[in-house]
Amino acid sequence: MSTYLTILGFNSAIPTVKSAPTAQFLEMEERCFLIDCGEGTQVQLRKAKAKFSKINHIFISHLHGDHVFGLPGLISSFRLLGRETPLNVYGPKGIKAMMEAIFKYTETYQGFEVIFHELSSKNSEKIFEDNRVEVYTIPLDHRIYCNGYLFKEKPKERHLNMKEISKYPEIEICDYHNLKRGKDFILKDGYVLKNEVLTTAAEPPVSYAFCSDTRYLESIVPIIKNVDLLYHEATFLHDLKEMAEYTGHTTALEAAKIARKAKAKKLILGHFSNRYADYQVFLNEACEIFPETYLPQQLEPVKI
Amino acid sequence: MSTYLTILGFNSAIPTVKSAPTAQFLEMEERCFLIDCGEGTQVQLRKAKAKFSKINHIFISHLHGDHVFGLPGLISSFRLLGRETPLNVYGPKGIKAMMEAIFKYTETYQGFEVIFHELSSKNSEKIFEDNRVEVYTIPLDHRIYCNGYLFKEKPKERHLNMKEISKYPEIEICDYHNLKRGKDFILKDGYVLKNEVLTTAAEPPVSYAFCSDTRYLESIVPIIKNVDLLYHEATFLHDLKEMAEYTGHTTALEAAKIARKAKAKKLILGHFSNRYADYQVFLNEACEIFPETYLPQQLEPVKI
Repeated sequence: MSTYLTILGFNSAIPTVKSAPTAQFLEMEERCFLIDCGEGTQVQLRKAKAKFSKINHIFISHLHGDHVFGLPGLISSFRLLGRETPLNVYGPKGIKAMMEAIFKYTETYQGFEVIFHELSSKNSEKIFEDNRVEVYTIPLDHRIYCNGYLFKEKPKERHLNMKEISKYPEIEICDYHNLKRGKDFILKDGYVLKNEVLTTAAEPPVSYAFCSDTRYLESIVPIIKNVDLLYHEATFLHDLKEMAEYTGHTTALEAAKIARKAKAKKLILGHFSNRYADYQVFLNEACEIFPETYLPQQLEPVKI
Repeated sequence: MSTYLTILGFNSAIPTVKSAPTAQFLEMEERCFLIDCGEGTQVQLRKAKAKFSKINHIFISHLHGDHVFGLPGLISSFRLLGRETPLNVYGPKGIKAMMEAIFKYTETYQGFEVIFHELSSKNSEKIFEDNRVEVYTIPLDHRIYCNGYLFKEKPKERHLNMKEISKYPEIEICDYHNLKRGKDFILKDGYVLKNEVLTTAAEPPVSYAFCSDTRYLESIVPIIKNVDLLYHEATFLHDLKEMAEYTGHTTALEAAKIARKAKAKKLILGHFSNRYADYQVFLNEACEIFPETYLPQQLEPVKI
C-alpha cells in the first residue's frame, strides 16, 4: 500500500513526439487519482499499464488545453468500455459547461455518472476525504484560474506485535482495533500494558503536492509545508524571469526556492518550455538552491 | 507534384498504444489537407514529418470523438506557433458551436481566423475548388450525420515538346499557354499544327475517396466511380454483419463490394474494431471480392 506517482507527461503547451502534455497518475492508499489530462493521456495511461478503470477522481488544475484536452477522449473511452462507476471531476468553474457541450455535439452519452466539482475559491480548501486520504487545493497564480493539489495520507494504523500480544490471553481479537490506533491495554488486575510494547510503529503517512501552472508564489509554502514530494512547474530558466512573470510561469531557481522554504523532502521539476532541448540545465539551476531536485521520468513510477 | 496519402491513424473508437484514431494527411497538387482529427493527431503529424503549418483545410467526417477530439489541440498549437493564415474547417453542423465553446472556456484566442463550413446536406456537394483541386462530400449512413470526402485533381496541362516547337519560329512564348491546354496552332499560311505533335500527354489527374464511418451504402458508388484510391471503413468481418448494421458500420466483404462496383483502382481498409488482434483477416475477406485491397500502413505515405 505504498504511494506511487507516475508522470504521464510533463510537456508545456505543444506536445512533441518525445513528451506528452501534463498528466499524472497517483496511486495513494489503493486510491487511483488522475491529475490533469492533456491530449493523449489515455494512451499514456495504457503505456504506463496504469489501473485505467480504477480512476474515480480526476483533478484538473486549469482549463488550458495542454492540461485538459485529453479529458473528452478519456471519458468517451470509459463509456465504450462499459464503465458504470461514477466519475468525480474536480476543476475550475466552467469545466462542466465545456464538457457538457462536447458531450452534446459528439453525442457522448455516458452510461455512468460524471460528477463535476467546480472550484472557484481563492483559498485552499479540502475537496476530498475518505478514511485514508485527503486532498486540498493549492490556489496558484496563472493567466487563468488555476489550482495545484495536495494529496495527504491520513495517519496509518500501528502494526500488532503478535509475539507480545500472545503472552496475554486477556487480549481478544476485538481489542486489536484499539491497539492499532495506539491505545494501551489495561489488564483485569489494573496493570497497564503500554501500546508501544504490543505494537510496532505505523509507516509515516506521506504527502504529495502538484503545482502547475503558476507564477512564483510564496503563499503556497504554508499549504505544502514538509511535503514528501513536490512537483513544481519550471517553464523557464531564471535568465527569462521576465518572460516567466509575463506568461504566468515559474523559473527553475524559483521552484527550488519554494521547495526549500516549504522544507519539501524532494522536488521534481516539469512543464519545460519547448525552447530547451536539454533539461539538465533546469536541474543544474535548481540544485544550487535545493539539492534534492530531480527531472521527471515519463512513465516511470516513483515511490513517494 | 504527385499526390500522397499518409494515414496518421486508423483505429476505431478507443485509441491504443499501437494505433491512433482516424486522421489522414493528403498532399494533392501541393495542397495539404487533413481528413479527420482524432485525439493525438498533432503528434502523429509530427511523427509523419508532415507539412504541419501548410494545412489550410481540415475535413471532419462526423462528430464522434475518435474523429474529432484532436482538433482543439491542433488549433491551439497552431496559435502557439504564431499561425496567421486562415484555417478552413469543414464538418457537420454543430462543429462551430462545439469548438467555440471549447475556445471560450480554455481561453484559446486565435491569432488567425478559423472559418467553419458547416455541412447538413444529404446530397453530395462540391465544397472546395481552386485551379487544381476539387473536393466533394460523400453522404454516408452512420449513427450521426456523417460525410466522406472525394478529392479530385483537375485535368493537368500537357507538356511542351520543345524539340518540335523550336522548328516553328512563329510559335511564341505567349502561345505556350494554349498549347498546354491542348489547342492546335495555326501557322500564318493556314497550316494547322496538331497539338499532339507540339505537346506530350499530361499526367492523368488522380482522385481519392475517404469513406468512414458508414453502413454498407450503394448510393456512394456513382459519386466515387473510377476513383484511383478508395479508403473505406471495415469495422467488422462479415460474420458480424448484424453488429455492423446495428452500430452503423461496414464489413470487409461489403467494403470490397463497394470498391468493385465503383471500379476503384485500389482499396485500403481501416477503422477495425479492437476485437481483432490480427488485421490480415480483413484483407483475406476483402481480397476474395476485390483483389487490389490493402491494409493501412500507419505513417507511411502512399503515392496515389
